[in-house]
Amino acid sequence: MASKATTTAVPAAPSPGGPGDGCAGEPQGCCPLYHEAIELIGRRWTGAIVSVLMQAERPLRFSEIAAAVPQLSDRLLSERVKELETRGVVDRTVHTGPPVRVEYALTPMGRSLAPALRELAEWARRWLPATADRAN
Amino acid sequence: MASKATTTAVPAAPSPGGPGDGCAGEPQGCCPLYHEAIELIGRRWTGAIVSVLMQAERPLRFSEIAAAVPQLSDRLLSERVKELETRGVVDRTVHTGPPVRVEYALTPMGRSLAPALRELAEWARRWLPATADRAN
Repeated sequence: MASKATTTAVPAAPSPGGPGDGCAGEPQGCCPLYHEAIELIGRRWTGAIVSVLMQAERPLRFSEIAAAVPQLSDRLLSERVKELETRGVVDRTVHTGPPVRVEYALTPMGRSLAPALRELAEWARRWLPATADRAN
Repeated sequence: MASKATTTAVPAAPSPGGPGDGCAGEPQGCCPLYHEAIELIGRRWTGAIVSVLMQAERPLRFSEIAAAVPQLSDRLLSERVKELETRGVVDRTVHTGPPVRVEYALTPMGRSLAPALRELAEWARRWLPATADRAN
């Protein structure tokens, strides 16, 4: 068992960054923008919705997104999609028809999430099956 | 206003993947592992805690993590750190002292999140200030 006390100088814990912090010195810091991003994308089901739109080769209707994430209720899907639209991640297009058709697609901002989501998916594939085994 | 109906064949929406899905064909698909990963890391404050540990050059005490994320209550920090420990992302070491000292550090699994978090931080820096401006 380790018991010796640390005698080296204790560097300050990383700053979370103030409101005016441009995060220049914090490659993945707990800066407000990073925090905002991870909680936007990590919100329950949001990551799944973004992923479904990312893989689609064309805009998707509400019912198509719903079919791709069957565990998600229509109410919650609607809420999440509206939030992503408000944040500029998803674009909603109404084709006035008839019949009226509403389609959703990622904006350039939304598409730019691809590298981050790809890295996260790789991490998941590499590490999560192992920990699931370990938990059994 | 667009009004013509889609006449092209409608490809099936991406599969969310069944329990046995290895996600091989889904680079960032809505597969169970990806979904699990994004919701683990995206949970409120978890991304911030992982980021603080990632930037630290040595294991941190509870109080140091708390100081780096001052908006977070001790109760919630404790809960999140325990969850990360259970999932294998964070390693908790007890130095029996005296005085007793408890330290937290990322495991290799936790450190492997670096590329994903770096990409997400870059996305945040590039896109979130612009959308904040637009919302004003």
